[in-house]
Amino acid sequence: MQLMRIGERGAERPAVRGDDGVLYDLSPVTSDIDGAFLAGDGVNRARAALAAGELPALPDGDGVRVGAPIARPGKVVCIGLNYRDHAAETGAAIPAEPIVFMKAPNTVIGPNDTVLVPRGSVKTDWEVELGVIIGAQARYLDSPDDAAGVIAGYAISHDVSEREFQLERGGQWDKGKSCETFNPLGPWLVPADEITDPAKLGLRLWVNGEPRQDGTTADLIFGIDHVIWYLSQFMVLEPGDLINTGTPAGVAMGMPGQPYLRAGDTIDLEIDGLGHQRQTLQDA
Amino acid sequence: MQLMRIGERGAERPAVRGDDGVLYDLSPVTSDIDGAFLAGDGVNRARAALAAGELPALPDGDGVRVGAPIARPGKVVCIGLNYRDHAAETGAAIPAEPIVFMKAPNTVIGPNDTVLVPRGSVKTDWEVELGVIIGAQARYLDSPDDAAGVIAGYAISHDVSEREFQLERGGQWDKGKSCETFNPLGPWLVPADEITDPAKLGLRLWVNGEPRQDGTTADLIFGIDHVIWYLSQFMVLEPGDLINTGTPAGVAMGMPGQPYLRAGDTIDLEIDGLGHQRQTLQDA
Repeated sequence: MQLMRIGERGAERPAVRGDDGVLYDLSPVTSDIDGAFLAGDGVNRARAALAAGELPALPDGDGVRVGAPIARPGKVVCIGLNYRDHAAETGAAIPAEPIVFMKAPNTVIGPNDTVLVPRGSVKTDWEVELGVIIGAQARYLDSPDDAAGVIAGYAISHDVSEREFQLERGGQWDKGKSCETFNPLGPWLVPADEITDPAKLGLRLWVNGEPRQDGTTADLIFGIDHVIWYLSQFMVLEPGDLINTGTPAGVAMGMPGQPYLRAGDTIDLEIDGLGHQRQTLQDA
Repeated sequence: MQLMRIGERGAERPAVRGDDGVLYDLSPVTSDIDGAFLAGDGVNRARAALAAGELPALPDGDGVRVGAPIARPGKVVCIGLNYRDHAAETGAAIPAEPIVFMKAPNTVIGPNDTVLVPRGSVKTDWEVELGVIIGAQARYLDSPDDAAGVIAGYAISHDVSEREFQLERGGQWDKGKSCETFNPLGPWLVPADEITDPAKLGLRLWVNGEPRQDGTTADLIFGIDHVIWYLSQFMVLEPGDLINTGTPAGVAMGMPGQPYLRAGDTIDLEIDGLGHQRQTLQDA
């Protein structure tokens, strides 16, 4: 079962996709897939309603817009340089503890929505990442072993980045991470208990059909449970928050000639078990 | 007229404080002081209802908790090192353009709520700041002259900061800015048109009655209008967002002996025309 939100931007309807690939309307269970739903055992309620045949099937999804699988997060927290090969390609040292930065929550868009190259940008870059969606409050977790209890599920998260804004315009990374449309998410929220091992997921990204990133979460420097535990020492994570866990090697910044994104480019992203995204770029 | 939210945390009621100092219930006009209210000409609707005598007076506010004057923001965007004297005391260069970082929106609390010293913290520090509340979308503003049109009003904002987490734990500042309770806000949202000149406001902060910060927004490196215009080139600001515009000199990090905050300390903050905050510290 996968959780989805479908329909026009700002008016998405909650849905589930059964293992038969059919979409069902989740409106009888909740008005939205948000923090309150996730904190209220929403995943299990959705699963039970689906199993009981209580959800009306939706028409074939072709042509229907897919939104982000969660309502706007309370915060989007990101881990930087969390794959050895990506740290190396950017010329950065392997971090001794997780690097933490944030994206503005209004960057989150649907998985196939248009991504805008910011005005004045010459270094818009891609980053496929495993997104973790929080399902319960995390505050000073005792150990990484407690992390699993606060994870609702996983989704493909595209941490679009503007490298000049991030690195050459003074100060902190956030400036190059929060541009409009910079966080495609989805298509699905896959419940945590339906992912056998989040530490063994392949992540892949293509630009105009050319393979650019091909990594695995097995290469994370700081694993998912460590990251969630660590963040909970510095901030209170809440249901519905999104954690972007870092990207493997293969971004434009690390490639010969640094082929940054331009209007008209198309990006495809995949993570094992989490579906597929495709975005086309336009100028803002 | 000042806008307020009063009542227990998570159950605040919107209110206005008339120029006679009396509190009036704003519930007949709106269910909350949030982005939708501000974007919908809420300030003028509140003012008109107050002038028409349509708002019931509330009992004397003594003993009633004052909440943040706005519902949880969509984002909290901060400007670093935006006063020359503060940049100097921290040993940092004067920035060539604004330094931008973020706080988690769930750090926002009422102006007199308890501030928690994070577990493991030895460098919890204070920062009085002019907070700007956004009232209309700001996306690629043409010039700083357009900023006034998107500002709903102003409030005292306390950008509590943990310097070790911010500066010595790897990477980006956000790690030391987003701890639980780290953004007291209020007591009031003062509408922009009731502040004669936001570039001439005195800001003051005391710790245990000892004066620590005494600055003026006249010393901002990047003025309010410039900051709002600048941010709109990198992200979309939305109604209800909070912008913390920087702090003047006098923080613990810049003082002899670096007298960081401890449980039991009391902090008072004032900004001309924006009221007064008082927080007592406890251990998290």
